Amino acid sequence: MAYTLSHIVAQLGGALKGADRLVERLAPLDVAGPADITFLSNPKYRKQLETCAAGAVIVSPKLAAELDPARSWIVVDDPYLYFAKVATLFHPPAQPRPGIHATAVVGEGSVIAASTEVREHVSIGRAVVIGERCILHPGVVVGDGTVLGDDVVLYPNVSVYHGCILGNRVAVHSGSVIGADGFGLAWAKDHWFKIPQTGRAILEDDVEVGANTTIDRGALADTIIRRGAKIDNLVQIAHNVQIGEHTAIAGCVGIAGSTKIGAHCTVGGAAMFVGHIEVADKTHIGGGTLVSKSIRQPDTYASSYPLQTMKEWLGNAVHVRHLDDLAKRIKQLEREIGKLKEPEDNAND
Amino acid sequence: MAYTLSHIVAQLGGALKGADRLVERLAPLDVAGPADITFLSNPKYRKQLETCAAGAVIVSPKLAAELDPARSWIVVDDPYLYFAKVATLFHPPAQPRPGIHATAVVGEGSVIAASTEVREHVSIGRAVVIGERCILHPGVVVGDGTVLGDDVVLYPNVSVYHGCILGNRVAVHSGSVIGADGFGLAWAKDHWFKIPQTGRAILEDDVEVGANTTIDRGALADTIIRRGAKIDNLVQIAHNVQIGEHTAIAGCVGIAGSTKIGAHCTVGGAAMFVGHIEVADKTHIGGGTLVSKSIRQPDTYASSYPLQTMKEWLGNAVHVRHLDDLAKRIKQLEREIGKLKEPEDNAND
Amino acid sequence: MAYTLSHIVAQLGGALKGADRLVERLAPLDVAGPADITFLSNPKYRKQLETCAAGAVIVSPKLAAELDPARSWIVVDDPYLYFAKVATLFHPPAQPRPGIHATAVVGEGSVIAASTEVREHVSIGRAVVIGERCILHPGVVVGDGTVLGDDVVLYPNVSVYHGCILGNRVAVHSGSVIGADGFGLAWAKDHWFKIPQTGRAILEDDVEVGANTTIDRGALADTIIRRGAKIDNLVQIAHNVQIGEHTAIAGCVGIAGSTKIGAHCTVGGAAMFVGHIEVADKTHIGGGTLVSKSIRQPDTYASSYPLQTMKEWLGNAVHVRHLDDLAKRIKQLEREIGKLKEPEDNAND
Repeated sequence: MAYTLSHIVAQLGGALKGADRLVERLAPLDVAGPADITFLSNPKYRKQLETCAAGAVIVSPKLAAELDPARSWIVVDDPYLYFAKVATLFHPPAQPRPGIHATAVVGEGSVIAASTEVREHVSIGRAVVIGERCILHPGVVVGDGTVLGDDVVLYPNVSVYHGCILGNRVAVHSGSVIGADGFGLAWAKDHWFKIPQTGRAILEDDVEVGANTTIDRGALADTIIRRGAKIDNLVQIAHNVQIGEHTAIAGCVGIAGSTKIGAHCTVGGAAMFVGHIEVADKTHIGGGTLVSKSIRQPDTYASSYPLQTMKEWLGNAVHVRHLDDLAKRIKQLEREIGKLKEPEDNAND
Repeated sequence: MAYTLSHIVAQLGGALKGADRLVERLAPLDVAGPADITFLSNPKYRKQLETCAAGAVIVSPKLAAELDPARSWIVVDDPYLYFAKVATLFHPPAQPRPGIHATAVVGEGSVIAASTEVREHVSIGRAVVIGERCILHPGVVVGDGTVLGDDVVLYPNVSVYHGCILGNRVAVHSGSVIGADGFGLAWAKDHWFKIPQTGRAILEDDVEVGANTTIDRGALADTIIRRGAKIDNLVQIAHNVQIGEHTAIAGCVGIAGSTKIGAHCTVGGAAMFVGHIEVADKTHIGGGTLVSKSIRQPDTYASSYPLQTMKEWLGNAVHVRHLDDLAKRIKQLEREIGKLKEPEDNAND
Repeated sequence: MAYTLSHIVAQLGGALKGADRLVERLAPLDVAGPADITFLSNPKYRKQLETCAAGAVIVSPKLAAELDPARSWIVVDDPYLYFAKVATLFHPPAQPRPGIHATAVVGEGSVIAASTEVREHVSIGRAVVIGERCILHPGVVVGDGTVLGDDVVLYPNVSVYHGCILGNRVAVHSGSVIGADGFGLAWAKDHWFKIPQTGRAILEDDVEVGANTTIDRGALADTIIRRGAKIDNLVQIAHNVQIGEHTAIAGCVGIAGSTKIGAHCTVGGAAMFVGHIEVADKTHIGGGTLVSKSIRQPDTYASSYPLQTMKEWLGNAVHVRHLDDLAKRIKQLEREIGKLKEPEDNAND
C-alpha cells in the first residue's frame, strides 16, 4: 500500500508544500527514510528534523517558516491527529469475514447479524443479540441475554457475562472481563454472605477497553461506561461505577464501587479511587494518585510521594511519621520567639 | 418471580409492619417503585425515605419509630444482610444443567460427578477429580491432577494449573489464574535460573475469587487461601502466601511471596504487601497502603500520600524530599532559642 | 523419582560431606524429613538446623565448620542456586507430546514444527511460524503472522496478537496478552481518535512472563523485552517500552509508554513508571515506588509513604498537605532568631 501526498491531502485536508511524492509507510521522526511519512508535533523534537531522512513530514503552521524546500511537507493545525488519520489510511481496521466458524457454539434464541464474523471456539449463550459487522475473535464467551451493537470487536479470550449491553463500535481487548460479579458482601456473624449482583454492565457507543481489564456488573443499579470513554489495560472498574463521556483512563487504575467520574476527565496510570465519591467533569488525575474524596473543582490533582534514592528516602520518610510532632515544635518555637521579642518590641515603642 | 412480604418474613425472619404486599423486584432506595422492595441501612440516607416510592422497606429497629403506616416495612437487626438474603431469594444461584458438552475435552483418568455441568470448549486434564453440582463455564482449563470439591463454579476462561485443590463452593470469576508458577529466580552469574515451583495452590471451602486475579502455586510449600476468604478482581497473590479465614481483599491488591495475612482482616483496594511478613488477625488495611513490615497489633493501618491539586502538591512534595533537613533546622532553632532564653531564665531566678 | 546425593553431586557439582543417601523430595528447612533434601541460604534460619530432620542439607562453606557428622551435607558456594538446580533435577520441565489436537484450528499458510504440541481449542491464525518443541496449552490464541521460536511454552488462555515475535525458550503464563493495541489516542475536537498501533511486541530469547500480564504492541516502533528479562503477574507494559536484558520485574508493576528500562535492573512489586523516561542499567526500584523521572545513576530508589496506624496517619498526613507552610515558618523563625541573636553577637565582639 502506498499513497501520493496529494492523495492524502485530498482525503484528509491540509496543505501540501514541496513536491508530491509516493509514501509507503509511517515511521517515527528518528528512523524515517525517503519512502516514509512522519510528523513533528512536540517542538522539543524540532532538532531531529535536521537529520531526519523522511520523504514527507506533517507539521504545524508555526514550523512552516522553517520548511526545507528540498523536502515535502503537509501543513496542518494538529499534526498528531493528522498523523493518526494517515495511519488509519495505511492501516484501516480489519473487516469482518462474515460467518460463524464450525467450532463456535451459539445458544438457543440468539440472533447474530449475517455480516458478523464469529471465529473458532467462540461460545455465545442463549438469547444473545449481536449486530452487524462485529468480529468475535477466538475464545470469546458471551453470556445469556447480552446485547452487542454494530461493529463491535471482541478480541481473543474476552469474557462478557450475561445480561450486559455493549453499544456500537465498542472494542474490548483480549482477556478483559465485562460484567463479572461486583465485590458485594454482608457480614453474617461468622462469615461473609454474598450479595447477588443483579445490575448490568453497560458500555455505550465508541467505548474501547484494553487488555485484561475488569468492568463489574452493578449490584442493583448498573455499571455504566459512557459514550466515547477509553480505558487502558489492567483497569479495575467496580460495581455501580459510572465513567463519563470521553473520559480516558490509563493502565493499572482502580475505581472502587459506586464512584462516579465525570466527562472529559483524564486519569493517569495506577491512580486509585475510593468508593462512593464523585469527580467533576474535566478533572485530571496524575499517575499514582489516590483519590480519597470527591473532587468538585476541575483541576489537575496529585498525591504521589516523591522519588528518591533509598538512602535519601530512609532519611526523610522517618520524619513523615513524626510530622505532627515537628509541626507542634514549630508552633512552640513561634510562641517562644514571640515571648523573646516582646521586650524588644516594647523597647521599640 | 414475585413474593409477598409475609412469605419473605416466613422464609428469612424479621417483623412485618403495615400491609402485606406483593413485591416483584429489588431496587435502590432512590429509584424504587411500588412493586419494589428496598432497604435503609446507612442513616445518612434516611432523608430519601420521605420521597421514596418503594412498596416495602427493610429497616432497623432504630428507625421503626418513624415508620410511615401507609407503607410496608420489614424490621430487622441488620437491614443490609437481610436485603442480601432477599436478593438471593429473587436471584438464586444458577443451577448446573448436568452433562459434558460435546466440545469439551476430558483427559484420561479424570472423574467428573454426573451432577456437574461442563460447558463448551472446556479442557480438563488427566487425573482430575470434580465433585457434585459444579459448573465449568466455556473456555475453562483445568490442569492434570487438580481436585475440585462440590458446588464449585469456574466462570468463562478461568485457568487452573495442575495439582491444585479447590474446596466446596469455591467460585472463581473469569480470566483468573490459579496455580501459575510463582516468581522464583536465582541469579546464576549472568542470567536468572528458574526455580521450579513445585507447591500447590489451595483454595479452601467457600473462597470466592474475582475476575483476572492471579493466585500462584507455592514454590515448595503451598499457597493457601483459607476457608471463607473473599478476593476481588485483579489481585496478585504470590507463591507461599497464606490468607486467613474470612479475610476480604479488595481489587488491585498485591501480596508478595510468603506473606501471611491473618483471619478476619479487611484489605482496601490497591494495598500492597511486601514479602515474608505477617499480619495479625483482625487487621484492617486502608486503600492504597504499602504494608512494608509485619503487623503484630490489630488496628487500622494506612500509608497513602494525601490528595491535592497538582499546584499544591508541587509546593509540598518538594519539602518531603528535604524533611531530614527541615527536622535538623527545627532542632537547631530549639537549641538557639534555648540559649537566648538562658539569661532571661537566669533573670527570673 | 529418587536420587542419591552422590548422583546429585556428580550432576551438579558441590562437595558431599557425610554418608551418601537416597533423597526423594525437596522440602523447606522447617518441614523436611529424613527422605528430603533442603537448603540453608539465609544465615538467619541457621537455628532451624538444630531441629531440622532433613536427610540432607545444602549449605555454604561458611557453615561447613558446624556440620553435624550424623547428617549428610552438600557444600556449595551458592546454596540457593544449587537448590534450584536440584529442584529442576526432581522436576524437569514438561516435554511436548508432539502433535496438533483435533479441536485446534490452524490458519492457512502456518508452519508448525512436527515436534511441537498444540493442545485442544487452540487457535492459530494464518502465516504463523512455530518452532520446535513448543507447547501451546488449551485455549491459546496466536494471531496472523506471529513467529514463535523453539521451546516456547504458552500456558492456557494466553492471547498473542498478530505480527509479534517470541524468541526461543519464551514462556508466557495463563491469561497474559501479548501485542494488544497500545493506548494511543489523539483528541479530535469532541472525541478521541484512535491511533492505529502498527508496531510489534517482541520478546527475545529466555523471556518469561507471568499470568495476566499485558505487553502491548508498539505504536509505530516496537515494544521490546530483551533477552533473559523476567516479568511477574499482572504487569502492564505499554507501547514502545523497552526492557533491558536480565531485568526482573515483580508483580503489579506498570510501565507507561516509550519508557526504557535498562539491563540488570530489579523492579519491586507495584512500582509504576511514567512514560517517556529512561532508567539506567543496574538500577533497583523499591516496591510501590512511582518512578516519575529518568534515572541516570544506578542506585536503589524508593518513593513510598511510610506505614502507620490510621490514627497516626491522620495526625501526620494533614501536615504533608501544609509542608510548604511549615517550611516557610521555619525560615521565618530562623530569620527572627538571627535578629534576636544580633545584639548578643555584637556584645560578644
